[in-house]
Amino acid sequence: MSNAPPLPTAGGTPKRKASQRLPPLVDGLVSQRARDLLDVIEKWVDDECIPSDAVYTAQLGTGDERWNGHPPILEDLKKRARELGLWNMFLPKNHYSNLNEYDRYGGAGGFTNVEYGLMAELLGRSRIASEACNCAAPDTGNMEVIARYGTPDQKKAWLAPLLAGEIRSGFLMTEPDKASSDGSNISLSIRQEGNDLVLNGSKWWSSGSGDDRCKIFIVMGLSDPNSSDRYKRQSMVLVPSNTKGIVVHRMLSVYGYDDVLTLGSAPHGHGHITFDNVRVPVSNLLLGFGKGNEIMQGRLGPGRIHHAMRSIGSAECALEWMIARLNDDRKIPFGIPLREHGVLLEWVAKSRMEIDSARLLVINAAAKIDSGDAKAALTEIAEAKVAVPRMALEVIDRAVQAHGAMGVCQDTPLAYMWTRTRTLRIADGPDEVHLNQMGRRENRARAQECIDRIVDQKRRTDELMAKYKVVDKQLGGSKVSGFKAKL
Amino acid sequence: MSNAPPLPTAGGTPKRKASQRLPPLVDGLVSQRARDLLDVIEKWVDDECIPSDAVYTAQLGTGDERWNGHPPILEDLKKRARELGLWNMFLPKNHYSNLNEYDRYGGAGGFTNVEYGLMAELLGRSRIASEACNCAAPDTGNMEVIARYGTPDQKKAWLAPLLAGEIRSGFLMTEPDKASSDGSNISLSIRQEGNDLVLNGSKWWSSGSGDDRCKIFIVMGLSDPNSSDRYKRQSMVLVPSNTKGIVVHRMLSVYGYDDVLTLGSAPHGHGHITFDNVRVPVSNLLLGFGKGNEIMQGRLGPGRIHHAMRSIGSAECALEWMIARLNDDRKIPFGIPLREHGVLLEWVAKSRMEIDSARLLVINAAAKIDSGDAKAALTEIAEAKVAVPRMALEVIDRAVQAHGAMGVCQDTPLAYMWTRTRTLRIADGPDEVHLNQMGRRENRARAQECIDRIVDQKRRTDELMAKYKVVDKQLGGSKVSGFKAKL
Amino acid sequence: MSNAPPLPTAGGTPKRKASQRLPPLVDGLVSQRARDLLDVIEKWVDDECIPSDAVYTAQLGTGDERWNGHPPILEDLKKRARELGLWNMFLPKNHYSNLNEYDRYGGAGGFTNVEYGLMAELLGRSRIASEACNCAAPDTGNMEVIARYGTPDQKKAWLAPLLAGEIRSGFLMTEPDKASSDGSNISLSIRQEGNDLVLNGSKWWSSGSGDDRCKIFIVMGLSDPNSSDRYKRQSMVLVPSNTKGIVVHRMLSVYGYDDVLTLGSAPHGHGHITFDNVRVPVSNLLLGFGKGNEIMQGRLGPGRIHHAMRSIGSAECALEWMIARLNDDRKIPFGIPLREHGVLLEWVAKSRMEIDSARLLVINAAAKIDSGDAKAALTEIAEAKVAVPRMALEVIDRAVQAHGAMGVCQDTPLAYMWTRTRTLRIADGPDEVHLNQMGRRENRARAQECIDRIVDQKRRTDELMAKYKVVDKQLGGSKVSGFKAKL
Amino acid sequence: MSNAPPLPTAGGTPKRKASQRLPPLVDGLVSQRARDLLDVIEKWVDDECIPSDAVYTAQLGTGDERWNGHPPILEDLKKRARELGLWNMFLPKNHYSNLNEYDRYGGAGGFTNVEYGLMAELLGRSRIASEACNCAAPDTGNMEVIARYGTPDQKKAWLAPLLAGEIRSGFLMTEPDKASSDGSNISLSIRQEGNDLVLNGSKWWSSGSGDDRCKIFIVMGLSDPNSSDRYKRQSMVLVPSNTKGIVVHRMLSVYGYDDVLTLGSAPHGHGHITFDNVRVPVSNLLLGFGKGNEIMQGRLGPGRIHHAMRSIGSAECALEWMIARLNDDRKIPFGIPLREHGVLLEWVAKSRMEIDSARLLVINAAAKIDSGDAKAALTEIAEAKVAVPRMALEVIDRAVQAHGAMGVCQDTPLAYMWTRTRTLRIADGPDEVHLNQMGRRENRARAQECIDRIVDQKRRTDELMAKYKVVDKQLGGSKVSGFKAKL
Repeated sequence: MSNAPPLPTAGGTPKRKASQRLPPLVDGLVSQRARDLLDVIEKWVDDECIPSDAVYTAQLGTGDERWNGHPPILEDLKKRARELGLWNMFLPKNHYSNLNEYDRYGGAGGFTNVEYGLMAELLGRSRIASEACNCAAPDTGNMEVIARYGTPDQKKAWLAPLLAGEIRSGFLMTEPDKASSDGSNISLSIRQEGNDLVLNGSKWWSSGSGDDRCKIFIVMGLSDPNSSDRYKRQSMVLVPSNTKGIVVHRMLSVYGYDDVLTLGSAPHGHGHITFDNVRVPVSNLLLGFGKGNEIMQGRLGPGRIHHAMRSIGSAECALEWMIARLNDDRKIPFGIPLREHGVLLEWVAKSRMEIDSARLLVINAAAKIDSGDAKAALTEIAEAKVAVPRMALEVIDRAVQAHGAMGVCQDTPLAYMWTRTRTLRIADGPDEVHLNQMGRRENRARAQECIDRIVDQKRRTDELMAKYKVVDKQLGGSKVSGFKAKL
Repeated sequence: MSNAPPLPTAGGTPKRKASQRLPPLVDGLVSQRARDLLDVIEKWVDDECIPSDAVYTAQLGTGDERWNGHPPILEDLKKRARELGLWNMFLPKNHYSNLNEYDRYGGAGGFTNVEYGLMAELLGRSRIASEACNCAAPDTGNMEVIARYGTPDQKKAWLAPLLAGEIRSGFLMTEPDKASSDGSNISLSIRQEGNDLVLNGSKWWSSGSGDDRCKIFIVMGLSDPNSSDRYKRQSMVLVPSNTKGIVVHRMLSVYGYDDVLTLGSAPHGHGHITFDNVRVPVSNLLLGFGKGNEIMQGRLGPGRIHHAMRSIGSAECALEWMIARLNDDRKIPFGIPLREHGVLLEWVAKSRMEIDSARLLVINAAAKIDSGDAKAALTEIAEAKVAVPRMALEVIDRAVQAHGAMGVCQDTPLAYMWTRTRTLRIADGPDEVHLNQMGRRENRARAQECIDRIVDQKRRTDELMAKYKVVDKQLGGSKVSGFKAKL
Repeated sequence: MSNAPPLPTAGGTPKRKASQRLPPLVDGLVSQRARDLLDVIEKWVDDECIPSDAVYTAQLGTGDERWNGHPPILEDLKKRARELGLWNMFLPKNHYSNLNEYDRYGGAGGFTNVEYGLMAELLGRSRIASEACNCAAPDTGNMEVIARYGTPDQKKAWLAPLLAGEIRSGFLMTEPDKASSDGSNISLSIRQEGNDLVLNGSKWWSSGSGDDRCKIFIVMGLSDPNSSDRYKRQSMVLVPSNTKGIVVHRMLSVYGYDDVLTLGSAPHGHGHITFDNVRVPVSNLLLGFGKGNEIMQGRLGPGRIHHAMRSIGSAECALEWMIARLNDDRKIPFGIPLREHGVLLEWVAKSRMEIDSARLLVINAAAKIDSGDAKAALTEIAEAKVAVPRMALEVIDRAVQAHGAMGVCQDTPLAYMWTRTRTLRIADGPDEVHLNQMGRRENRARAQECIDRIVDQKRRTDELMAKYKVVDKQLGGSKVSGFKAKL
Repeated sequence: MSNAPPLPTAGGTPKRKASQRLPPLVDGLVSQRARDLLDVIEKWVDDECIPSDAVYTAQLGTGDERWNGHPPILEDLKKRARELGLWNMFLPKNHYSNLNEYDRYGGAGGFTNVEYGLMAELLGRSRIASEACNCAAPDTGNMEVIARYGTPDQKKAWLAPLLAGEIRSGFLMTEPDKASSDGSNISLSIRQEGNDLVLNGSKWWSSGSGDDRCKIFIVMGLSDPNSSDRYKRQSMVLVPSNTKGIVVHRMLSVYGYDDVLTLGSAPHGHGHITFDNVRVPVSNLLLGFGKGNEIMQGRLGPGRIHHAMRSIGSAECALEWMIARLNDDRKIPFGIPLREHGVLLEWVAKSRMEIDSARLLVINAAAKIDSGDAKAALTEIAEAKVAVPRMALEVIDRAVQAHGAMGVCQDTPLAYMWTRTRTLRIADGPDEVHLNQMGRRENRARAQECIDRIVDQKRRTDELMAKYKVVDKQLGGSKVSGFKAKL
């Protein structure tokens, strides 16, 4: 245990529970049921999930075997989660109430985005907690899609086992050599032949595609290339992962890791996949031809809240590691304990400030979605999408730096967290696309108003100057004429 | 009017009112009375105050006369404010209800910190709006102090005319050559001689001391140098500004301006003052000997919220100028309108995101103070104190840069705003002091908890490794021994 | 003298002279004559100019009189400079050797850009040193222009008195409401009528136009609006400042200061000027019709080196103030001397590092110009133009913050320096224009090369993979096919 | 080849060679011999090494086998390097001339730090180039140490085969749970027993320790714990890696990679090693008891230059990938080619500027070492050590972001480069230690000088104020007294 900080002699103050630490602005938006569950989740994550992370990693290993099998500790954690009533909490109010008891699998859904967001923060502290309570991406988004748009047969075949945690799923959107952040660029071909759909093309960053338990893919493809509306050319299709013609060519690494793309994602990697005359029945189509981008849009808002809140959890966790490190009395460079170094104390303070600020931004976006005005929340969601990973990367990187060489290796969760968080500046579209769209939206919405206001105020100023007979006193020298001040 | 952007041809969408633009997280915390007033304030600030800013500046002038007289437009605006019921809104609930009707001067106080904070944001858009509704620093803090700690005689003599807006006041804390961010360093001498207090020493950054209407100073000094408690050595005394022995030696400029120290402050400068055997009766003492630092502490929390929210208002205003500039079609460098330049659109987006984030941070601190737990809000207040001016400086500087040479001169409010905001990284203690204290506080409060948790989790991991008989697979080569993974 | 840090008890090591502190990379490029002069300049600036800065400022005053008269101390300093052989050092080798002894006015020109750049750094430490040795903008650029392109009559009339320091000059380029960073947008009309040129239009940011000694303007205007080459539409004309029809309407402030636009500029402000049928003889044309942008281009390179090096001098000066402040033992907040605060020590270190780095960047650009390849130095000059003011603003702002309230007022040179430096991110085109052009230039010059190289390397990799019969081992699981690694 | 950008239709300008692209400031410091070799190296790295990087990576694989064997392509590259005369170029002038012909192994050493630094930049473009020409860390530093301090027997046993590239070596300094950036904290015990030294303790981050070819360790340990001089307590010992009692427990990962610690390092990982009564003869001691820190100091300067220059090479390479990406016409998000996006062009420009600036900083430090004044170069070396990795991380991260998901995976060298560079902010002491020491050094060296100068200038100002009878005009109002302006 040589790298862990030593136990201090005296016990500290009892830590306040998650439900007691809610920011004042959030406090009024959380039901008692959610508060109770937050405390259960926190205890479970800290006492059971985080200690299991290292075991899970070790069970996976780093050798050839890591691509086969499935760490047994995760199945045990899933059982435990269901015992604690921690299952499918992500299922939002509206879908949750539309499902019958059987469908829900006894899960604990039905929360607002604010409430589940707070839970996701806690889940984000652990590598495997999200999957252990069936709240991992991309399954969560996929389940929402099938719950919302699926036919009864589709639900029975795929939603039921997904809600039960018996299988996993993939979401195949991104294509190599395409600017996939613009959904209208997707070009894997979907062609109808009689009662079949025939798929040809390639996908990559297909999360979970290396996992044997991943049984179903939702595939976005180009079905109506001639539609006059660019955004009605794509469709989504349910494709069983073992369908003939699908080949997973290789796994993509992420800064040397096999899998990290999404904080809530189970492992087994991001595949580069080809579709060669892959056939599924037309009944596997979701919602209808040309509806791919419409489904896409509905899927992204809450998903971005989840990612952002899990990243907040990572950042909080990194701050805890940094604080522990500062009090490790075996590390006293140049005779001064780390906790007395002003630069490090400033890192702690800035991290505290930046995490708190980012959390409010995300919960504000969640509250706007909850208020029913999801489309009006575009700016708030984009703010959270862009601001949080940048903040979390900074906080985690400080913690890495405070740990020295220990920070970049497997002896803390920090390096893995950083990598996972780094991908969030790219996933669902790079920051720059979101910032550009935010900028255009703000400019378009407000240009007229801003110009009007400034022009109006200038006009009133001129009237007031005349009324008060102001002789401008600001000019110097004998050359001064009656030119009026501009503002 | 050559520098104002031209009117576009078509009318835009009607602007939503302030009460309709509240962030979702804040919405539930604002009473109908406050919402109504927010809309009145917004209209008054935009339609009457901002157009008056330039007139006021011109009436002040930049020549010798600027130190004498008082711009008449301000008195007119004050009348107008009282007609609209905009007066003394800063007076917080508890003080407000303790004052009788006469004392209140018909003012509209009694709001929560969240509510008045939102009003202060609107006031911060104009140079003179805060003073025009009697909500300018340092008067607001001074009035709170006298309302809270003053004797009936002190209230009658000074609080009444201050609440009526008939006089102004100074707060004399900072001393040259002292680290004044630590109140226990204050050393202007206060000595009792019979029924008199005799003051000797010097003060600087005495805001408002160049203004003839400034009739009363609250002076912090060293009265009990031998007290064993460093923080019980100072006292506060009410000193009429015309008392014999007070000399205002010179005015301090701020980046070339005569006065900008505090966003809500009226002009007439920051003085460098000496006290030479200045005598006032002992009855002018506030609260008691040695109580200076205690009064100081109570004064700062809400004041920091006010400064921060006014800075949010400045930043919003700067963003509006930037947006207007982007749509000024006389400025089309290299053939592309400014609104099509990706870098500038990114500035708009980041500014939107950073302002929204900072606002939530301040309002969260205000809500924590409102919940009655002011002392527990130390971290939240410090977060707002540090984060907001940094954000606002960045947003304003982007707007300056987008305007080119026009941005640094008097033709926009931007250069003045920047300067005013810059002082807030120093006023009430430099950022670095606050960050250091935040870091220490966070570290002290959480060190034990963080260490315990990590050590505990490590222990559980070891148990789980044993239980699952994990043979660590991550090591390579023939040299591998049974050494266990750390995490 | 209460604000100056106290003298420490013991004397320190003797300071090394400027010629002894040259960075190793620069050492070999400086002649003995330049080294000798560097030491003379350094002593003169430190011992005579900087102490005079405050006197000069006080002689100017801040009242009405500041627009009239001329601080006598500056004329005394000019005399002294000539005694020391410090005059017109800016005059570059080629122009210098083309002028006869009389023209040179005994000045000490003829240096390389590297050599004069190092001198400019020293001059930049003082507000008035540049003018005191006749090396202030815009006169330097104007003298270069007349020396290079002027007719004998033009030289006699204007170059001679400028070289002698008897008059000053203005450079009127920027226009309100134009994107003046693109010279082809300049639109003040220049129309030929018989032997006269008739000028109509307006200019602003006309540095020095408030100064009675400013006798001659170089005016850029639109003479050939129909030329097919956008960059051959403008001309430059010599216009005496007292010509009929010229009105200086008002002075533009810069963050509250009357004048700061350029580090080397004398005061008396930046004017907003109109031209109403202003007539000068055609013989006042410089170089020829349509040659305005050509002259402009030649003027900018060395001028940017001068500005950048003076800013380096400002930054060094700010660092010295910061170091002195850290050792002011009257300022010991919370019991620890400032020099023991880790955050402040890091500011010193970063400032040291950033100044040293920026200096090398500028001198490298100067060396490239000196190597005769001024056009090929576009990127190097742009790097210096953009990087140096950003660096200097950061260093100066740290020094301001370290001084607290003292840093924003007139008690140190820091606030003035910051403002002066801030304008350099805008003058001669905003950073964003330069960055955009650098980006385009780099991309255009290297796109083909970069693509070729990467494609070529990929092809070779494929050949090597085949040669070595590599079976890619990086893929996991049973699904792996023969897909090859990309890189 | 689907991810490589397509070939443009027309050929570009021929690329200039490395020797033709030297910055002007550097040009005069490079001999013809070095220039010739630079061009040979550049061609070899681009044409042979970079294409081999992917083959090497594939030969290593990502499965169990990666810990065994040795990619054959590297041995072929080594042969090729020797044919081209590219061998041991790192060997500095003084050591090189002290070795006889046999020792040098026909290598091409004897260059200045500036010259070899420029070569290291080119080597840093490839993962394996440094090792392929026997210039990889830690061998280079180890060879320098043995060449400088080794006995003839030590040289024969270890220097000869190292110079020949037949074996590799480890440098075992860092210990877990120690603040190893302070050499006096090293505590692995070295005890003399008769003619033996007995070593007990543990080391980690022992680069290369996973490689079978790594035959010799230089081990730093605590031999004289009672020495009154903290920095004379440690010694260095040569320990064959197969000595009994040495156990490599596990390999440390770096952000998911097996090995990346140092840019020039060969793979096979960073081991965590224990020493249990490891015995070597006393004759294996280097230089003498208590000389460990002395050897350490001499070793670090040039090594930091090498690391920094290789990082410059990485950054240049990342910029090339970014430029190629911008011109990949399959990626046209929202209808605009990437090369037209202002934000991305600004990234190119800033990267160009930052790389150029950092390169000059490093070469300046190298030139200072070359001037024989290595101890006086402490600040310059620290500047390079701190500034370069920060710059390179930023440039590489921009390139990653510009590539989207492709940037984080194995399809470009970017993710690996970032990780490698990230460790350089920690290796040889974290940034914060270097900044703190730089700050203290600068403060100590200059405090007296800065104070003297400012106090002196203030005194002269006072004299001048008196001489010129200045009545300060900057104060306002009737209260003004004769208080003098401070500056």
